[in-house]
Amino acid sequence: MNPALTRPRSVLFAPGNRADLMAKLPRSTPDAVVLDLEDAVPNTPEAKAEARIITRDAARELVAAHPKLNVFVRINAPHSPYFADDLHALTPELAGVVVPKLESGADTLAVAAALAGRGLSLPIMAGLETALGVWHAHDIMAVPAVAWAYFGAEDYTTDLGGTRLSEPSGTPNLGVPNLEVLYARSRVALAARVAGVPALDIVVTRLNDDAAFLVDAAQGRALGYAGKLCIHPAQVALSHSTFGPTPADTARAR
Amino acid sequence: MNPALTRPRSVLFAPGNRADLMAKLPRSTPDAVVLDLEDAVPNTPEAKAEARIITRDAARELVAAHPKLNVFVRINAPHSPYFADDLHALTPELAGVVVPKLESGADTLAVAAALAGRGLSLPIMAGLETALGVWHAHDIMAVPAVAWAYFGAEDYTTDLGGTRLSEPSGTPNLGVPNLEVLYARSRVALAARVAGVPALDIVVTRLNDDAAFLVDAAQGRALGYAGKLCIHPAQVALSHSTFGPTPADTARAR
Amino acid sequence: MNPALTRPRSVLFAPGNRADLMAKLPRSTPDAVVLDLEDAVPNTPEAKAEARIITRDAARELVAAHPKLNVFVRINAPHSPYFADDLHALTPELAGVVVPKLESGADTLAVAAALAGRGLSLPIMAGLETALGVWHAHDIMAVPAVAWAYFGAEDYTTDLGGTRLSEPSGTPNLGVPNLEVLYARSRVALAARVAGVPALDIVVTRLNDDAAFLVDAAQGRALGYAGKLCIHPAQVALSHSTFGPTPADTARAR
Ligand SMILES: [Mg+2]
Ligand SMILES: [Mg+2]
Ligand SMILES: [Mg+2]
Repeated sequence: MNPALTRPRSVLFAPGNRADLMAKLPRSTPDAVVLDLEDAVPNTPEAKAEARIITRDAARELVAAHPKLNVFVRINAPHSPYFADDLHALTPELAGVVVPKLESGADTLAVAAALAGRGLSLPIMAGLETALGVWHAHDIMAVPAVAWAYFGAEDYTTDLGGTRLSEPSGTPNLGVPNLEVLYARSRVALAARVAGVPALDIVVTRLNDDAAFLVDAAQGRALGYAGKLCIHPAQVALSHSTFGPTPADTARAR
Repeated sequence: MNPALTRPRSVLFAPGNRADLMAKLPRSTPDAVVLDLEDAVPNTPEAKAEARIITRDAARELVAAHPKLNVFVRINAPHSPYFADDLHALTPELAGVVVPKLESGADTLAVAAALAGRGLSLPIMAGLETALGVWHAHDIMAVPAVAWAYFGAEDYTTDLGGTRLSEPSGTPNLGVPNLEVLYARSRVALAARVAGVPALDIVVTRLNDDAAFLVDAAQGRALGYAGKLCIHPAQVALSHSTFGPTPADTARAR
Repeated sequence: MNPALTRPRSVLFAPGNRADLMAKLPRSTPDAVVLDLEDAVPNTPEAKAEARIITRDAARELVAAHPKLNVFVRINAPHSPYFADDLHALTPELAGVVVPKLESGADTLAVAAALAGRGLSLPIMAGLETALGVWHAHDIMAVPAVAWAYFGAEDYTTDLGGTRLSEPSGTPNLGVPNLEVLYARSRVALAARVAGVPALDIVVTRLNDDAAFLVDAAQGRALGYAGKLCIHPAQVALSHSTFGPTPADTARAR
């Protein structure tokens, strides 16, 4: 495994239907990149089908041009109508596959079996972003194919039937950002440590506010996260400044 | 089930020994009302016996006068000496029975069996308000007879051996109300979602402070609660403004 | 059991290699004292061996001079190379043994068996201060030999791979001390209540800041802790002022 993947500090996403943005992913030197077939692509069979082809080509070009880049594809959730076809967008040169909205150990084993059934032995980055996913976090992450996990606060809150106070919704956040997800965010980090996988922290959706990102990242680091999911290239350097040098960086510096 | 009960925003309590206050319960148009034989009635056999008769009559009159009103009775806890006799205060026209201080799935199954033994098929609103109740929250709410649940912060804290910092006790609450119960309150909301039942949020004991109630309700909503337990009619409108229109309201407005 | 031990408000530590400091432990009248062979003694076989002898003598002298004093020895963790030899430092006159970094019920049963194998029936104060220890908190505390537990925030955070925001590290703590360990601290307190053992709250490492200690102690009390681990004699009186009179004090005052 590429050393940056033992504890990735930044995982930068780009829409799986945007060849231009995917080609630019390496510029900010993230520890890993994700070509996203899920949230970033419109929820129609046509859009998903088109994105699969674009993503598959983009992944091959990125790996060819940047052999050390850790390229992931995020497929759609196992219970979505797109899951089976999304597997065709996966190729062996990927560093792994990001699987959103995993809800149980059984779910996760089924995904691993589906990958194996296609001759792919890709490690899984497990998305814990539903009530069931957070409740079963340990069982999901204990599946051997799971090598990383992330906590998704927005989807979790939607599934829970709650609201995000920290987003610019006008509701006071009581002075402490993310307090409404502190329980789930802490639980996932602990379960990840118990399961022995590094966990990636929540997306910061507000862009162009470096101070807010840094506060959020400092929270995630304090709670035990290895790094952050990033949705803008500028978030990569901020993540690296928070989460510090990788073990590989430190070894090289000696 | 009355549509307001699929996700009740307000559950207004009145003492089960006060016919006058129970008769007034519909005025604030809460989604559900509770005639309380537990905390609101003195802890003596005589007071409980008298309240059972008053409550039983009040329930019948409320349902007769307001056929769409969702009327509950809160009985005393399964392990209390009043539980068996309290079952006689229950009648089939109730929307359900509120059972406080449930502590395990087995407890809850025993309550459901006791109700069935009296020919009552009332759904249960489960009170999670002890250390064991919060610890076993999921098992309790997974019992099929449980259709709603509530988290009780005051009783929980007493049972835990802790203190409430948010109450006017003089101890600083560190700027964030209810931080001392954030773990339990979050855990119950998550377990409720996993079990598929709507959860009612904590009582606000300080009256005549609308701003404080609204902050508290916004927290509860953010954490995934469907509505609040109310102990004063003025809290009902505040709850509705926080938790928004019911699915039934929204359907009607179309 | 000495009445102060039913719910100890203060457990004062001294280094197990410092006879002078151990002799002074009773001066601040803590509810219990701990002669520490773990963190307070350098991590070498020689230092540990020397400390065992000093500690064993100190324990005997303390109990002889203060027959009502509750004297504990903290040994090194079960998975450390010092554990087996540390058992030789234990004597029957101790009130109990503090075992750090317990990680499972099986771990804890093995410790109890090791003590029994040496003819010692000392009750255990269980240290929950790793990811596994917090995750398995209930199973550990449900072992009959466990009579108390403590939560250790510093070691927990280190093991988790997180950071402490509240320590003078320069990182903002978002206005709420200890927010980064609120989940684990709350979980341990709840699991302790469910298991029926009193829990001791986190160490305050910053000395000479009484106000900060009192805020920290008020948090711990609110969360259900019985008292605090103390690392300086001045922290004892502050703990007692927060956690109030013991049941024994109250009985005596009548
Ligand atoms: Mg998503
Ligand atoms: Mg109550
Ligand atoms: Mg330690």
